[in-house]
Amino acid sequence: MNEHHLTVDLGERSYPIYIGQDLLQNADYLTPYIHGKQVMIVTNTTVAPLYLATVKKMLSAYQVCEVILPDGEKYKNLDVLNQIYTALLEQRFDRKCTLIALGGGVVGDMTGFAASSYQRGVNFIQIPTTLLSQVDSSVGGKTGVNHLLGKNMIGAFYQPQCVIADTNTLNTLDDRQLSAGLAEVIKYGLINDLDFFVWLENNIESLLNRDSEALAYAIRHSCQDKADIVAQDEREGGIRALLNLGHTFGHAIETGMGYGEWLHGEAVGAGICLAAKLSNQLNLMTHADTTRTIKLIARAKLPIEPPQSMSANQFTALMAVDKKVINQQLRLILMKGIGQSFLTAEVTNTQIETCING
Amino acid sequence: MNEHHLTVDLGERSYPIYIGQDLLQNADYLTPYIHGKQVMIVTNTTVAPLYLATVKKMLSAYQVCEVILPDGEKYKNLDVLNQIYTALLEQRFDRKCTLIALGGGVVGDMTGFAASSYQRGVNFIQIPTTLLSQVDSSVGGKTGVNHLLGKNMIGAFYQPQCVIADTNTLNTLDDRQLSAGLAEVIKYGLINDLDFFVWLENNIESLLNRDSEALAYAIRHSCQDKADIVAQDEREGGIRALLNLGHTFGHAIETGMGYGEWLHGEAVGAGICLAAKLSNQLNLMTHADTTRTIKLIARAKLPIEPPQSMSANQFTALMAVDKKVINQQLRLILMKGIGQSFLTAEVTNTQIETCING
Repeated sequence: MNEHHLTVDLGERSYPIYIGQDLLQNADYLTPYIHGKQVMIVTNTTVAPLYLATVKKMLSAYQVCEVILPDGEKYKNLDVLNQIYTALLEQRFDRKCTLIALGGGVVGDMTGFAASSYQRGVNFIQIPTTLLSQVDSSVGGKTGVNHLLGKNMIGAFYQPQCVIADTNTLNTLDDRQLSAGLAEVIKYGLINDLDFFVWLENNIESLLNRDSEALAYAIRHSCQDKADIVAQDEREGGIRALLNLGHTFGHAIETGMGYGEWLHGEAVGAGICLAAKLSNQLNLMTHADTTRTIKLIARAKLPIEPPQSMSANQFTALMAVDKKVINQQLRLILMKGIGQSFLTAEVTNTQIETCING
Repeated sequence: MNEHHLTVDLGERSYPIYIGQDLLQNADYLTPYIHGKQVMIVTNTTVAPLYLATVKKMLSAYQVCEVILPDGEKYKNLDVLNQIYTALLEQRFDRKCTLIALGGGVVGDMTGFAASSYQRGVNFIQIPTTLLSQVDSSVGGKTGVNHLLGKNMIGAFYQPQCVIADTNTLNTLDDRQLSAGLAEVIKYGLINDLDFFVWLENNIESLLNRDSEALAYAIRHSCQDKADIVAQDEREGGIRALLNLGHTFGHAIETGMGYGEWLHGEAVGAGICLAAKLSNQLNLMTHADTTRTIKLIARAKLPIEPPQSMSANQFTALMAVDKKVINQQLRLILMKGIGQSFLTAEVTNTQIETCING
């Protein structure tokens, strides 16, 4: 079987995720989800030469246009977003059109936000081509762009019609991007899935070697873990916040270093290590589980330390504008053990600074 | 009684509209709808000196900041929108904050869109201070900004917590803005409310003279007419399109002349006259009803002809990017009589050009 199929259960906004090999060449996964006759493919300069022609081949019955964005997190902003609106208007795309995001998380987030806001909402489809976007940004409907003062601060909750994750696209991913995706995969084990964490300890080399069966298993498992959480809490009123394990530290790294210097997954990897160390410092998690966490992050070839150029003060200042801050109180995801993450508002800046400096 | 109260019925997104004199000085209309402790008032350079202090006086228990935008439709764009996000981030506003729109339609549309997209959605309250915004943009949840290639092309459907329409604020409105608001008021009569149209024929001078009882009646009646339509069709799948009577022509005028040259209501006034003439040209509406429509628009001191500098070709080109275009077919609101508007996809560019040239 070369296709795994799961459904993100959100009532009338439910949608399928298809995972497997050779899906891009099969129109059956794509065309049933297109509304109208006009299709805009949004992609970037890296992905377009690899997969744009393959996708367009499936769409001969439609008016198809494309927008090719520059590649990288630093282009995830309002100005570049406006290029998508301009292309849609120049081609006279109407509100029955469909946008297809073909690329990684940046392309997916921007295309989703463009779809949510063009003519106050049009349809969209995600074709994630990186491990990170296949396991993370394709599930849950978070879309948006960055602001100079904070990551993902402008956006919308907006669900796609379907997600097509073709594992073949991972063969063209560079090693650094593959590792970045593994940070999010490991995160699901740490949140609430010890069995999956153990599986990852046993299979991390297969994943790094791009074994397609192992990758498909890890993607399906990650998407299912995330979909289960999102189905309980679509707009992050409660449990969904757990998905941000490592992200408050990680976003501070991304914003502090300048978007794109560290990949999102790299920042999350170091952020998970900081969350583990802080959990141990606060006597929440054992030294053994902390070491085991950091070791798996290291085996995935991810950074386990924050950037040396960032001071502890810079961290706490940047973390103070995190979306989880409420009434000036930072809320962080910490761990009581592997697979036992929880949200806490009990952490002080001094404790965080001690952790960073330690 | 100095307060009219009606509810826009949208299930869990229902909200009240308060209409009357001296409402701004009464915290009871405002503070029950504020969530969290942080309040950002978004207003403009014209309205701030008049009413900002009054509103802030009600909010001594909160952390209150303000953003004062330049005044005018030409500033309703992504760049100016970004000023709102920047202010929110600089003040470290969290996702429990509340945005208050204090001003006309431009301030309301931009603040609403900022609220819908800041941290993927925060609360907002509308305090409309122009007749046009009190009768139109405060009801229905349409928010957004313009793109150089089309008006209101970027936005979201997003409902406020409450709307406070203090008729005292109309005393500081200039005559041109007052007339612009009347275009939308007359529109409700033309759509489906002959009795209201007759009332307007009998009371147009009282409205132009700012008789507060007459204004409150017209505002309440307009809001109720609009709320009834929006409650049936929140996201404009059907009947809500009727609210666009005069607007497809009007948006072409606004875009063609440059945003801000013609006020929105002025463009809608001329647009209604064009819709009436076209309805007569196509033998849908009698000459008598057409003349009666144009006469009331003229009595409201609104333009009844399109700008001379715009060619018929320019109109049809601009109308081709209207949000009601589907599969390249323009859909227009026309009239079978006063109070009998309907949506049609049967109009050709040639017929429109004949109407413009006639």
